[in-house]
Amino acid sequence: MKTVGILGGGQLARMMVLAGTPLGVRFIVLDPAPDACASQVAPMVNGGFADANALDEFAARADVATFDFENVPAESADSLLKRVPVFPNPRALGIAQDRLAEKTLFGELDIPVAPFAVVDNRVQLDEAIASVGTPCILKTRRLGYDGKGQFRLLSPADADAAWDALGAQASKVGLILEGFVEFERELSVVAVRDRHGEFRSWPVTENWHVDGVLSASLAPASVSDVLAEQATSHARKVADALDYVGVFALELFCRDGELLANEMAPRVHNSGHWTIEGAETSQFQNHLRAVLGLPLGATRMLGHACMLNWIGAMPAPEAVLAEPSGHWHDYGKAAREGRKVGHATLRADSAAELAAALERVGDSLDRAGQVAPVVERLRKLDRA
Amino acid sequence: MKTVGILGGGQLARMMVLAGTPLGVRFIVLDPAPDACASQVAPMVNGGFADANALDEFAARADVATFDFENVPAESADSLLKRVPVFPNPRALGIAQDRLAEKTLFGELDIPVAPFAVVDNRVQLDEAIASVGTPCILKTRRLGYDGKGQFRLLSPADADAAWDALGAQASKVGLILEGFVEFERELSVVAVRDRHGEFRSWPVTENWHVDGVLSASLAPASVSDVLAEQATSHARKVADALDYVGVFALELFCRDGELLANEMAPRVHNSGHWTIEGAETSQFQNHLRAVLGLPLGATRMLGHACMLNWIGAMPAPEAVLAEPSGHWHDYGKAAREGRKVGHATLRADSAAELAAALERVGDSLDRAGQVAPVVERLRKLDRA
Ligand SMILES: Nc1ncnc2c1ncn2[C@@H]1O[C@H](COP(=O)(O)OP(=O)(O)O)[C@@H](O)[C@H]1O
Ligand SMILES: Nc1ncnc2c1ncn2[C@@H]1O[C@H](COP(=O)(O)OP(=O)(O)O)[C@@H](O)[C@H]1O
Ligand SMILES: [Mg+2]
Ligand SMILES: [Mg+2]
Repeated sequence: MKTVGILGGGQLARMMVLAGTPLGVRFIVLDPAPDACASQVAPMVNGGFADANALDEFAARADVATFDFENVPAESADSLLKRVPVFPNPRALGIAQDRLAEKTLFGELDIPVAPFAVVDNRVQLDEAIASVGTPCILKTRRLGYDGKGQFRLLSPADADAAWDALGAQASKVGLILEGFVEFERELSVVAVRDRHGEFRSWPVTENWHVDGVLSASLAPASVSDVLAEQATSHARKVADALDYVGVFALELFCRDGELLANEMAPRVHNSGHWTIEGAETSQFQNHLRAVLGLPLGATRMLGHACMLNWIGAMPAPEAVLAEPSGHWHDYGKAAREGRKVGHATLRADSAAELAAALERVGDSLDRAGQVAPVVERLRKLDRA
Repeated sequence: MKTVGILGGGQLARMMVLAGTPLGVRFIVLDPAPDACASQVAPMVNGGFADANALDEFAARADVATFDFENVPAESADSLLKRVPVFPNPRALGIAQDRLAEKTLFGELDIPVAPFAVVDNRVQLDEAIASVGTPCILKTRRLGYDGKGQFRLLSPADADAAWDALGAQASKVGLILEGFVEFERELSVVAVRDRHGEFRSWPVTENWHVDGVLSASLAPASVSDVLAEQATSHARKVADALDYVGVFALELFCRDGELLANEMAPRVHNSGHWTIEGAETSQFQNHLRAVLGLPLGATRMLGHACMLNWIGAMPAPEAVLAEPSGHWHDYGKAAREGRKVGHATLRADSAAELAAALERVGDSLDRAGQVAPVVERLRKLDRA
């Protein structure tokens, strides 16, 4: 019986453990937080991602290692690789950790991206604004997540404020300035690639963010076959270029019917949570199948699925559970502002039924605003 | 966050933990085996079901208790009930533990059963054979499972052999003689009833046993709507009569198109394992929803699902995982003759596709015999 080591013990690790246990594997997670929520279902080494002793113990107990958290120091991943196979490989991880390396790779692969420029100091910020144009977003190159480490500039006059907010990060994690994309919609491709290079992707998903944090996902996205094919082909090119093994997500903006790549996440992804109940095989199980060298499962879905993120605190579960296809995911985390503590997935055979279910849930939970953009999209689909 | 205590830490508890963790509950299992397989995913109190100290610790850590194993002493369930709510209630458990009480209840509810007679001593065995007729089966009233504690008699001349095999049990667990039913098929209704009396059942399932142990299950069973309705109505009557809360299975024989009740299992059931991937809500999650007083989930299914039990040792997983809808369940148990160590579920939109998938798996795993009766049933369905 093999043991899969997971660096990071958050909800992604927790859902991996739940999906992977039926494969007959054991798990060990490494996390600096003594109450990391995956430790409710798997043994944990409690220590930092750069703590040599913790990494030693983790490596000794794992037959193969993977990630719930992408910002593990590259050196830690490299040192692990001397002891156990690591998937995705540390090079892929390193590129996905750095917005500059990531965007450079996209460019090499002819995947369009918004204009961008590196910002190492205050003078370069002005130069970058001049070349990229406004509106734009200053972002940390590394360690950003859920919209953290970002500052939006509406005009060159915002440069000082942007530098006040993020300038101190320039020497630590680097900065990048990106053109602000007036997108019609945000999409993601969640996909998996196995050790032999076989690639499969779930239906393209549409995502809505609030304050930079994912709020809702809808699958399948109502995009043309051509666009879906393009998005999937971008994802495949990235995966092949990185010799990627496991699940990853490619986040895309769609503007004037054209795709621009935003970033990739080298791990199972929040916009793929709907696959647990919505697809034949979930992203969590397929990630483990890939990592373990087992055949990949089918990624097909039936009907429509919507995932709603619960941020800060869990609502009462009854409204969702009372829906014919309502599924509940409480990550077992303490409530805290801005924290992802759980999600719900609703499924239905038709767009109209899913819209109706979402409206009922939105009303019951006083979250009409969260479901509104999804309902609007589904109603359009229903009329089409 | 509530903690559900599960008496018994086998694969049923294990699958309950995997299905219930997303509800945000914690678990504690009680099992006499230090390596009980549910302890890989949940904390365990290691002790016997009649061990007062173990029960005390278990009760102190649980907010509500339920069962993975039905043969917990009634006194233990009663004593637990003084500390925490117990579902199903100990009376229901007590009746389901005893083939005589169970069959008596079926009779009271006008649910047909094969002829039977109690056997307390050698003389009564002859009387019972005379009244029930041969062929017949002598069974222990209590503690039997997977066909254990049974002896088949082809003629009255087998009475001595039957008594040699089981007579010593008469004073311990009681004996019952049942008429042997020349059934065309075996069916089960897996159903759930919540605290308010709401009842839902999954599609009727057809089951194939080998040496008294479940070998394969197929859902939906290819029975008429009338028969399915009858089977479900029997299950509902039993559940209502027992004020049952949670999932249970009613096992039925179908002979000459008529249903005869065999026994009930007061817990999630092997013939309901296909619901994990095959139904909108699995038996494991609905059991927990019922026990926790949460709304029940939909029990509908799409297409066809077949579960194959792995007995004794796990086969290699690749053949199943390579099927488009192949799902794998390794219980993490050591191999041992006759032991249920895992199962696989295959799904398909059509009967013909499922039959083809089963044949491929049967061939690859050298288990053509195990899949053959299911394939035969599906082929008939496909022609119909
Ligand atoms: N260049 C951009 N133009 C428009 N919106 C953006 C841009 N960059 C980020 N955003 C918005 O902020 C969200 C989070 O930014 P992202 O770069 O994906 O960082 P994170 O790593 O935090 O997910 C995006 O999903 C999108 O809604
Ligand atoms: N009266 C009977 N007539 C025919 N077959 C029987 C009878 N009783 C049991 N069997 C066969 O043996 C299997 C196991 O017996 P059962 O009474 O269900 O005991 P267990 O508690 O071990 O499941 C049944 O599923 C059926 O295949
Ligand atoms: Mg993002
Ligand atoms: Mg039985």
